[in-house]
This record gives sequence, structure tokens and C-alpha cells, in this order.
Amino acid sequence: MSFDVVDLLREIEDIGRDPIRGGWSRHVFDPAERALLAWFVARAESLGLDVETDRNGNVWAWWGARCPGTVAVGSHLDSVPGGGAYDGPLGVVSALSAVARLQAEGFVPAVPVTIAVFAEEEGSRYGVACLGSKLMGGSIDPERVAALTDGGGRTFADAAAAHGLDPAGLGRDDARIADLAAFVELHVEQGRGLIELGHPVAVASAILAHGRYRLTFSGEGNHAGTTRMADRHDPVVAFAETALAASRIAGEGDDHVHAARATVGRVVPVPGGSNVIASRVDAWLDVRADDDAAAYALRERIVAAAHGAARAQGCTLEVVEESYGPQVVFDAAVQRRLLDILGDVPVLATGAGHDAGVLGDVLPTAMLFVRNPTGVSHAPSEGASDDDCRAGVDALTAVLRDLAGGVG
Amino acid sequence: MSFDVVDLLREIEDIGRDPIRGGWSRHVFDPAERALLAWFVARAESLGLDVETDRNGNVWAWWGARCPGTVAVGSHLDSVPGGGAYDGPLGVVSALSAVARLQAEGFVPAVPVTIAVFAEEEGSRYGVACLGSKLMGGSIDPERVAALTDGGGRTFADAAAAHGLDPAGLGRDDARIADLAAFVELHVEQGRGLIELGHPVAVASAILAHGRYRLTFSGEGNHAGTTRMADRHDPVVAFAETALAASRIAGEGDDHVHAARATVGRVVPVPGGSNVIASRVDAWLDVRADDDAAAYALRERIVAAAHGAARAQGCTLEVVEESYGPQVVFDAAVQRRLLDILGDVPVLATGAGHDAGVLGDVLPTAMLFVRNPTGVSHAPSEGASDDDCRAGVDALTAVLRDLAGGVG
Repeated sequence: MSFDVVDLLREIEDIGRDPIRGGWSRHVFDPAERALLAWFVARAESLGLDVETDRNGNVWAWWGARCPGTVAVGSHLDSVPGGGAYDGPLGVVSALSAVARLQAEGFVPAVPVTIAVFAEEEGSRYGVACLGSKLMGGSIDPERVAALTDGGGRTFADAAAAHGLDPAGLGRDDARIADLAAFVELHVEQGRGLIELGHPVAVASAILAHGRYRLTFSGEGNHAGTTRMADRHDPVVAFAETALAASRIAGEGDDHVHAARATVGRVVPVPGGSNVIASRVDAWLDVRADDDAAAYALRERIVAAAHGAARAQGCTLEVVEESYGPQVVFDAAVQRRLLDILGDVPVLATGAGHDAGVLGDVLPTAMLFVRNPTGVSHAPSEGASDDDCRAGVDALTAVLRDLAGGVG
Repeated sequence: MSFDVVDLLREIEDIGRDPIRGGWSRHVFDPAERALLAWFVARAESLGLDVETDRNGNVWAWWGARCPGTVAVGSHLDSVPGGGAYDGPLGVVSALSAVARLQAEGFVPAVPVTIAVFAEEEGSRYGVACLGSKLMGGSIDPERVAALTDGGGRTFADAAAAHGLDPAGLGRDDARIADLAAFVELHVEQGRGLIELGHPVAVASAILAHGRYRLTFSGEGNHAGTTRMADRHDPVVAFAETALAASRIAGEGDDHVHAARATVGRVVPVPGGSNVIASRVDAWLDVRADDDAAAYALRERIVAAAHGAARAQGCTLEVVEESYGPQVVFDAAVQRRLLDILGDVPVLATGAGHDAGVLGDVLPTAMLFVRNPTGVSHAPSEGASDDDCRAGVDALTAVLRDLAGGVG
């Protein structure tokens, strides 16, 4: 039985393929995600690991009995709808591969090692990303989570209970947190940083600050044929000017040194008829930047442009912050230790949220990124070469050997 | 019993109010539209008119037995969802009021007069505007109409049958067309032309040429946080630049002499997540201009701008014509006669479709517009003052007195 990371990826490449969207769709508690989890459990048990599910639905495979000082590695197995093959699974199979390699070397860890699989990282079924790690770390109200509903109206509590979880047990898991000395998550890169730097692997420095805003432009609904252009108060035009301004303003500040990103991926005109001037447009603006000050400044510039665009059309604008995640700076000591172990590897920030970012509030965490030859994420064309996947496992194995502090 | 147009409008002001959207919602065969039609039938019968429903669901109230030379007046009673009080009903109640006034004068028409109420003018339930007049005039396939479904999946044939129509009888009504010498439709103005001209009533010259196009921008779906601005192929940005260009280009050609209008009222990004760069945007472009050449030129300029915007984002663009209605020029002889009767009234083109436009293919038609103090259409703030409504009836009465050629 091979634990080469490329062989492991090949074993799971047909689990959860999405025949309609293309790519893979594996959502928490769905058959495809459960099938992939069952595969993980079987593979972990074949390495002699003890597998358990915690009270929040996260799965842990233990090499050694849990106690303080435990080193955790892992990631998640769920995906966005029609996502890529690597986002999540690469971190889990690399952890299996690294443990297998250490075992094969005869390495005996001084502290327990555990492979973590976090639940609902993408938020694709219940709309909240990093649900499992947020519950464990206590950064989300478990009663709110229990009441979340999926697209079919089924609550998280109900679906969780059907998979053996007690909804009353959801929430912060202090005992588990106390036993973890560090969590290292390996993840496929979601941009082009490593392509340009010419390296297969990087260490994460930080996660960008991230705000999400709903912009509501209100104008005057009217007849598309009879209303002269000069008499219009068209919120679609005000929105369009705002979307262009957001792209331009963010583009001015987004380079190889600093990150400044603005995206509108969702826009809903009301009433939405093809032959009527809309009376209202709801648009969602996603803003990311290096740190909180930069994110605030970026948002302010875009919102000012949006107000100007609204005024020019005789529309009004309301801006509501739907969520804000401050910059996450990964633990400096662990980051330094990874750089000492790995030598000449670059350090990169990322614009994506991760369980390692969420858990950074309650324990030392770190991340490794593996080069993605397309730079594309959350889409089937996301990728990683066989050589780079193996380089990632080399790095993770070295990190684990060091952090677990054993002999081998 | 008063037949003053203001009193008639007050009688129907509570029929079909929409408690959710505001305004009025009266869709073909729905209870509100049926209630308004029942009111019309009762009022017409109280004037001694004989009311019948034709094979296409249009209702006719006859003053005199049908024969060649008949003069028709009227409009429609259905509305857009959450529309105004006047669009449609003003033409019908003005016709009732004009007939009542001629009767009170002792006028005896030389030819029959009929008040027509056309079915599904707005297309709000079955998606095709001017359905009743298109069926009657033969410009739409009756089998296609029979199979149209509403939002609840019910076919037009089924709903029509439940209201006493034989679906097999749908289609061109040559005998009826042959008996009609002219159709004059009075309608609330849907723009600001009469406000600026300072007149209560106008005669229609033409209906703008009208094209509807689906624009599909295809880019690269990607992660909103991790994809640098410079690496994006974002179809929302290409769309936004197109929407702005359409507004600017149309605005350059839209003045008091020429009409050039472009509207995007519907846009759908795919997948539509607030934290993903869309892979595709479908947008609908509505273009109107004085005549076919002007509409073609306007469309070409906007589509060229759209291609440029797509190229600048590294996106592709596909343009599909969903519908095209050429310019309608109202019958020159009837128009001249109306101007002779009414004296110093302005002549205006309109950007909206009307039953009188559809029927212009098969018989001489004309329109009168009544000033709208807001210029707003298809929304509750559409309006007409009491004085202007009465001026509209004065004009319609004079037209009917002349066209019906009787004595009084």
C-alpha cells in the first residue's frame, strides 16, 4: 500500500466529481464528503492511528494518545461547489503521507501527532466558512450554528445529529485546545505567488484583512423605452461605475509587495426585468488588504467612489458591513521555526481564510503553501504538479519531525 | 351614475392594489384583472352596450351592431407587477366616458362604435406583451401562445379554457379585422414629453424600433481573496464598463428631437457568490431608437464597446438577439385627421409597445397620450391630473364624434 502523495491523490480523484458544474462538489454531511472521510479513516487506521470525531464534527487521527504538547497537521476535505481537487484534500493526504514516511523511518515522536480534518471549511452547505474550527475555537455561537439551514431548509443540528453528533455538545473545546502545542496546515496556493518566485513551497506570514459589504443603490424604477436618458435615476449605472472604480482603485494598490483586492461577484437588480430601469440594485463588495488599516483605507476609497456614482445618477446609497475579519498574523515563533527547518523558502501572505487562521486565536498555528501552476482557486483548473506535491510532503515531514521532537 | 373620467377612476382605485410591491398588480385571468373586467362589463352594459369576448380573450363593448366601418377605441386593463393606476385603465375608462358623453348629447353614430379591452398587454403573466392583439392580428403563432406557461407552470391554454375560451379558437381574426375602420388608443404618457411641451394631450407619431439582446461575458472564475487584480479575467468588470458605455452612448443621441435609449435592467453573474470572481455574466441590453437604421447604429456602437471591454479583461463576449421590433409608424391619414380635429396638439413618438402598434399591421390605428406629471411608467408614481384626464376625454370624444361620422 503506497502512501506517496501522488498515489493517494489518485485514489480519491473520482470521489465527489460534479457532473454538472465540472470539478468536485463535496459538502459537509453529503454522501461525497462522507465517502472521502471514510477513505481517510481507513487510510489512517491502516497506519495504526486512532480516529475519533470531536463534538464539533472535526475528525482527528491520533499517532500516540492525546496529551498536552500534541502537534496537529491537516486541513479539510469539503469543497466549494464545482471546486478543484487540491483545496483541502492536499493538506490531509500530505499529512497521511508525512506520518507514513516518519513511521517508515522508524521515527518515534516525543509528543503525540494528530491529523485533523476540519468540518465545513468552505461554508458551501451552511454559508459560514471554517465552521468546525470556529466552533472548536469558540469564535461562533453554537446555538446560531445549530439553527443554520442548508439550501433544502435542513438545520445543521438536524444533519449533525443524523451523523452521530449531539447538537448540545457544539462549541468551544478548551480541553482539546489545551492539549495542542501547534497546528500546521499545508494548502495548495490560491494565487500566483510561488509561480513568480519560482519555488514549490512557501511558509505563510499572514491572512489578509477581509471585509464584506452590501451596497444598496436606490434609484427610480421606470420604463426602458419611454424614459429619456437624461431623466433617469438608474441604479445599474451607479453600480457599474462603482464596480469599475473598485477594480481600478484596488488595482492601483495590488502588487508583489502589497495586497489590495476588491471584487463584486454578486449583484441583484430589482425588479430585474430586461425592459425596465431598475429601482434598486443590491451588490456585494469583497475587500481584502494586508492589514486592518489598509483594508479600511481601501474600503473608504471605494465607498467614496460609490457615493459619487450614486449622486451622479440621482440615486441613494446604503452600505452595510456584512462581515469583517481582521488580518491574521501567524505565530511568529512557529513561523521562524519553520523557516529554520526549511531553509530558503519564501514567505507569503494569503487572501483566503483557513482553519489555521481561525485557530490562530487560541493556539500557535502555521501554514505551508504548495505552488499552483494556474493560480486558479475554487475552480476545477486549480492544480499542483506531482513534483510540487512531493516537495510539500518533504517540507511537512521535516516540520513534523522537528516539532514532534522525537528520535528516528 | 357619473361617467366623469375622474369618478370612474376613483371607482376602480382599490381593485388589484398590491400590498407587497405597492401600486397595482392585475394580471390576465387573475382575480384582480377579472374584477376590473367585471366592473367594465357592468359599466358598459349600463350604457346599453353589448359586451362580448372574442376568441382571443379580448373584450368588446358594442354601440351598434358590428359591421364594416366600425370605429374602435380602448386599451387594456392588466398591469405590470406593482404598476401604476393609469397604464391601460385610463384608455378604457376614457372610452366609456366619451361614449357616455356622446350619448348624452344625443349623438347618433353613422357606424358602430366599440370599446376594446385587449388581453395580457403587459405580458406580466405569460411573458409576451400585447398577447391579445398579436393573436387577433396574426403576428404570433397561436400554438406557441397556447403552450406558454405562467410562473406556476400553468399553460395559457389551460387558464384560458378555465375562463371560457376554446384554445382551438386562438389566432388571427380576419372577419373582425375586416369590420374595423380604425382603432384609437388613449394612453397615459410614459415619459416627460408633454410636461416639457406644456400640453395635456398629444397625438402619437410612431413607436421606436426596439431590440433586446443577451450579452454573455465569459471570464475566469477565481478566488476573490487570493487572485491579484492584475491576474483577473473578471466578467463583472467587463459588464460594468459595457453598462456605462451603453448609458453614455445612448445619452449622446437622446434629446428632444431624436430618441436613443439603452438599458440594462437584468444582470446575472455566475456562480454569483459574494466572495468569488464570477466566471460568467449574462446581461440583457434593451435598445430603442427612432427608426431601424438608428437602432442598428446604436446597437453596433454599444456592442463594439462591449467587445472592447471584454477584450480589456481577457474575457470573451457572445451577443444574441432575443427579439427585435421594427419602428411602427402610425397610419398617416388617421394621424392627420386627428390633428385636424384636435387643432394645436403636439405629435410625439413613444418608446413603449402598444396594442395600437401591433394592430397597425392590419388596420389603421392611432394613439392619444395624456400628460404624466412624473414621467414615470410601470411604477406606482405614474400619474395624470384630473384636468388632464378630462382633457384626454375631450379629445377622445371629439375624435370619436368625427370618426363615427354621425349626427348629434
